[in-house]
Amino acid sequence: MNAFDFLTQDRVREPGTGITMMLDKGIGPRMLMDLLEISGEYIDLAKFGWCTSAVYDREIVKRKVESYLSYDVVPYPGGTLFEIAYTHNKLDRFLNEADKIGFGAIEISDGSVDISLEEREKVIREVKDNGFMVITEVGKKDPKEDSKFTPTERVKLVNHDVELGADKVLIEAREGGKGIGIYDNNGNVKGDDVQIFADNTDIKNIIWEAPQKNQQVYLILKFGSNVNLGNIPPEEITALETMRRGLRGDTLGKVDL
Amino acid sequence: MNAFDFLTQDRVREPGTGITMMLDKGIGPRMLMDLLEISGEYIDLAKFGWCTSAVYDREIVKRKVESYLSYDVVPYPGGTLFEIAYTHNKLDRFLNEADKIGFGAIEISDGSVDISLEEREKVIREVKDNGFMVITEVGKKDPKEDSKFTPTERVKLVNHDVELGADKVLIEAREGGKGIGIYDNNGNVKGDDVQIFADNTDIKNIIWEAPQKNQQVYLILKFGSNVNLGNIPPEEITALETMRRGLRGDTLGKVDL
Amino acid sequence: MNAFDFLTQDRVREPGTGITMMLDKGIGPRMLMDLLEISGEYIDLAKFGWCTSAVYDREIVKRKVESYLSYDVVPYPGGTLFEIAYTHNKLDRFLNEADKIGFGAIEISDGSVDISLEEREKVIREVKDNGFMVITEVGKKDPKEDSKFTPTERVKLVNHDVELGADKVLIEAREGGKGIGIYDNNGNVKGDDVQIFADNTDIKNIIWEAPQKNQQVYLILKFGSNVNLGNIPPEEITALETMRRGLRGDTLGKVDL
Repeated sequence: MNAFDFLTQDRVREPGTGITMMLDKGIGPRMLMDLLEISGEYIDLAKFGWCTSAVYDREIVKRKVESYLSYDVVPYPGGTLFEIAYTHNKLDRFLNEADKIGFGAIEISDGSVDISLEEREKVIREVKDNGFMVITEVGKKDPKEDSKFTPTERVKLVNHDVELGADKVLIEAREGGKGIGIYDNNGNVKGDDVQIFADNTDIKNIIWEAPQKNQQVYLILKFGSNVNLGNIPPEEITALETMRRGLRGDTLGKVDL
Repeated sequence: MNAFDFLTQDRVREPGTGITMMLDKGIGPRMLMDLLEISGEYIDLAKFGWCTSAVYDREIVKRKVESYLSYDVVPYPGGTLFEIAYTHNKLDRFLNEADKIGFGAIEISDGSVDISLEEREKVIREVKDNGFMVITEVGKKDPKEDSKFTPTERVKLVNHDVELGADKVLIEAREGGKGIGIYDNNGNVKGDDVQIFADNTDIKNIIWEAPQKNQQVYLILKFGSNVNLGNIPPEEITALETMRRGLRGDTLGKVDL
Repeated sequence: MNAFDFLTQDRVREPGTGITMMLDKGIGPRMLMDLLEISGEYIDLAKFGWCTSAVYDREIVKRKVESYLSYDVVPYPGGTLFEIAYTHNKLDRFLNEADKIGFGAIEISDGSVDISLEEREKVIREVKDNGFMVITEVGKKDPKEDSKFTPTERVKLVNHDVELGADKVLIEAREGGKGIGIYDNNGNVKGDDVQIFADNTDIKNIIWEAPQKNQQVYLILKFGSNVNLGNIPPEEITALETMRRGLRGDTLGKVDL
């Protein structure tokens, strides 16, 4: 039972909506348990950012993965690690090790490498056939490269990936959320770009990387409390949940539950 | 005994001065104990920001409240939760539950709702009669709404609340400290506004929300090491204490103890 | 054994290179153990920022120092504490206490006080004779004071200190990394200034304070994965290690190991 439960309402979530994906960039095993105890129910996916999972002792990674799983959080390694495995022709071994460690999803991205549409299709199928949840990502790590894509091209890729079986598609924003994807150099949301997504794809398929508070507020006010959001820092998990529920000034009286 | 105690001086504090109010936006129970062990003596008040205390299991909230109390820190729920209780005509139940959980203060704010001066007076009295420390807040959550108030109007409200029995009055700055209250859009202090407060009210009654370092430095240099400061992030508690005591470059040789 | 070790390479480090210095500004004793367990092997030096070590119970400082030492991290008190000891003619007692607590290095700075070159020389020798690793710092805490120094003057001081026996020389950037030393007011690296260092001193002697990610990326891309970097926040230790190894988009395929 929550404190002050007579003042709040739970979120009612349809499957696949209201997802919160946390960015784990090196939280220690005990701090993780502490975080999960207080706010684990508000985390759905946990990304071990880029290749961070590859610079730790395997036993610590496993311990953290088990902690996540015990709170029904699906952990997965970052897209850059997939890209390295793919580039080095070690995709099989990568998937095998990810499975052994307990990761439940794989992110398929081309943020730093080039992968043809044909290859992308093959990889999506292979990852899916191996029993993983498939999360693809649309966007480039280098802002200059990323800015070459029009919103229409991005939407097209979202729809392409969903058609091939991707469970969710991430819109790249990196850890910083500035000058990339749907955000301008100050981290403000480019509303017209977001509208192009809204008009041309099923928003439920998307997880918006939204590391900054103003971005989370914008997307909640536009798409409702159950918009899928990602790259949330661990210390913002609770704050995000309160904003989804209209329990913070920014969204108070402005969301339906 | 502190390390290197032959190089430092303690702060001498008159009652009601030198207050540090920390903003707790979801710190886990074990991290909290860890923080209190190393810097608990430098925290006087701990605010469970906005409605965060209402999205946790009641037992965890109680455990955290007990941890705070064991270090003589007065914990209290954020103003937005009060506003929801007030709006839903559940103030009695809210105060009752807050008391049962162990909260020692109540913040009375109108950041997101409208409360007439007459009602404000009634609420202050009711909260006080229930044995809580009364902390009122001056300011609006929405920067546009907030900017409608002149410094003179703010000072008037401070004096009004103090007269009615408020123990302290917070000057709203939110978690970010930008474009609100005494801070401009870049988070710099509007010195002329602060001077209007200095000239027209007893500064000891005020707790300045000052989440950013430059704001803390400004207020310490202007009002001395024992100025009351709030919305301090947990990881800045120690840094603030060193600045209050002239133990950091920014204030070294510039404060009297 | 690390997870996914078939996808990564270790860094090969010559002695005195590849140093990561972390800024500890008040992390609790249990969080510290947690951090060290997951990423302790990527930390070489830990600075208790400015005078933070002097506002804690001596036993907690000792406990933290022992934790660092057990992971082969050399802890040391911040330069401002040295400056206070020096100004109050308590250098002997300061060094004695630092030694008793277990600190392995001393930072000799003049960020907030003036120390003549002659005195600087005497102090370096004294600290060295007491068996400490000597880390000097070049730069002033006050941006206005700091901006009076040309890059050429800074390089001269670096070479001066090294000649006198300093083990490493820090280039001041404070916790923020803006408008100071080699960084402009937005935190961007002043490339021409850095080049003057590169042309006139042995870069291995320098530890660049580089609290921000873009600064770390710049210096890694310019000087290689084993450039010495300091003032790294605890939560960025893992991220920095991945960037040093080319395991993050920013440096992927751009560093030699």
